[in-house]
Amino acid sequence: MKKTVVLVLFTICSYVGFSQNGISLKQAEKIIEVAKEKAISLNTKMNISIVDAGANLVAFVRMDGAWLGSADISLKKAKTARYFDMNTGIIGTLSQPGGSLYNIEHSNGGLITFPGGVPIKNKAGEIIGAIGVSGSAVENDQAVAEAGASAI
Amino acid sequence: MKKTVVLVLFTICSYVGFSQNGISLKQAEKIIEVAKEKAISLNTKMNISIVDAGANLVAFVRMDGAWLGSADISLKKAKTARYFDMNTGIIGTLSQPGGSLYNIEHSNGGLITFPGGVPIKNKAGEIIGAIGVSGSAVENDQAVAEAGASAI
Amino acid sequence: MKKTVVLVLFTICSYVGFSQNGISLKQAEKIIEVAKEKAISLNTKMNISIVDAGANLVAFVRMDGAWLGSADISLKKAKTARYFDMNTGIIGTLSQPGGSLYNIEHSNGGLITFPGGVPIKNKAGEIIGAIGVSGSAVENDQAVAEAGASAI
Amino acid sequence: MKKTVVLVLFTICSYVGFSQNGISLKQAEKIIEVAKEKAISLNTKMNISIVDAGANLVAFVRMDGAWLGSADISLKKAKTARYFDMNTGIIGTLSQPGGSLYNIEHSNGGLITFPGGVPIKNKAGEIIGAIGVSGSAVENDQAVAEAGASAI
Repeated sequence: MKKTVVLVLFTICSYVGFSQNGISLKQAEKIIEVAKEKAISLNTKMNISIVDAGANLVAFVRMDGAWLGSADISLKKAKTARYFDMNTGIIGTLSQPGGSLYNIEHSNGGLITFPGGVPIKNKAGEIIGAIGVSGSAVENDQAVAEAGASAI
Repeated sequence: MKKTVVLVLFTICSYVGFSQNGISLKQAEKIIEVAKEKAISLNTKMNISIVDAGANLVAFVRMDGAWLGSADISLKKAKTARYFDMNTGIIGTLSQPGGSLYNIEHSNGGLITFPGGVPIKNKAGEIIGAIGVSGSAVENDQAVAEAGASAI
Repeated sequence: MKKTVVLVLFTICSYVGFSQNGISLKQAEKIIEVAKEKAISLNTKMNISIVDAGANLVAFVRMDGAWLGSADISLKKAKTARYFDMNTGIIGTLSQPGGSLYNIEHSNGGLITFPGGVPIKNKAGEIIGAIGVSGSAVENDQAVAEAGASAI
Repeated sequence: MKKTVVLVLFTICSYVGFSQNGISLKQAEKIIEVAKEKAISLNTKMNISIVDAGANLVAFVRMDGAWLGSADISLKKAKTARYFDMNTGIIGTLSQPGGSLYNIEHSNGGLITFPGGVPIKNKAGEIIGAIGVSGSAVENDQAVAEAGASAI
């Protein structure tokens, strides 16, 4: 009986604890769908990560045969784009030797600062999350990320 | 020009590097769809992770309002289920104080050994990946994981 | 000149990237103020962490002479409380040997599941963050966390 | 009764364990106040970390809307400044490719060596801690850090 009570309480708690941080799963799934189509049109196979406004993962897919090592890269790109509310590639131009943000990649458990991470904005222009794409040349990664980010 | 050549080579490499480790993304998406339906039928909000035969993440979703902390738990459950090719809850019965696998959770960057992780088999009975579910009482997590695993 | 342009753009970007995740710094500072008063009234010296709805740190103080090791514990308590939208002590009752969430502490880079972490709600009852307190017996930690959480 | 005794002993221990490492919380709060004012005067939103003489965090604030990723950077700047008792930017000039401290950023769990970290001295000139600021162009970060460090 005691265990049942805990189970019931726990189930209720998990249901009422709602507190959305920006992007919804439905939006994330739409973005992934569009990004996958773009990836296919470019003859590429991508890892795609979507994080919310709190930089926490909302959705992820690895297309069949995409690089295993690109899963973590796509997540770090998405997080990096939300951490600094800008495309990852911009940070990469500043983190080069001699640059003002040299070796910023050592922060936050590892940043990825080459292209492929893009903030996601709602129609009001507010940042509600970010997309990170990895699996091909960075030009392709960026193109797929932008296609995804513009889907909503 | 040189840069263009590299880009083309890189794009080709990423395309031909195919080596499928069991489950396909299409199968993973089907499993997630069924698992989400089960979660909704139980009035729960879940984090759902699918890993392939190499224990690498293939797909992930966090349902709106699901616990943030359950994302990592769902991934660790999926990995644990594939690492040992059994339901996570079975390992948990052996990892208790005095048990034969006491504190096995310290391995592999952190295991989760309570219910909610289930291996995924193809029709021939071969293990092609695993599902990990977290977001409610473990009985619910396990029910959703089993619903997903039986979808293919 | 180029460098100046980057600097200006960067400064603008940092200013317009606003996207609040629940609790404001002003609210966090009010909570810390009340928590500190409670800690003093109990003759204790505490580490106090406040995270937002995305489980990211908003504010922290270590009272003079408080245990060094409690800084990380207070942060992990705050994160744990937000990760699962409940008091940390509840999770601890389920993570004991034989419990349904045994060794859940191995997830999310390390959870702390004894008392002292409490979700923070706004007047509408929505969770906007969490407080984590560490530095004394857990009964005192919990009392200080509750005092803080009820300050807004 | 036994539990009560432990609680009392624990509470006493936590109170008498005092051993100040340089900066006090009151000084840290004063520094943060001045740094925030400087940040506002520069139209920036900053993450500000204060560490003590033991390089342990004493106080932290993230101004509303400041970059999420700058929290960890501000902490690493403060730690780096105290680890080597100099402004972080100085280390960054030595950690470049070919430099005498090339890639020193790999040590200590990750250093940040661009400007924004400054040691804090008392009136006798003794280093009692450090401040780390992140959230804008490094010139602004450094200006805010210096304003803070000179507040006491």
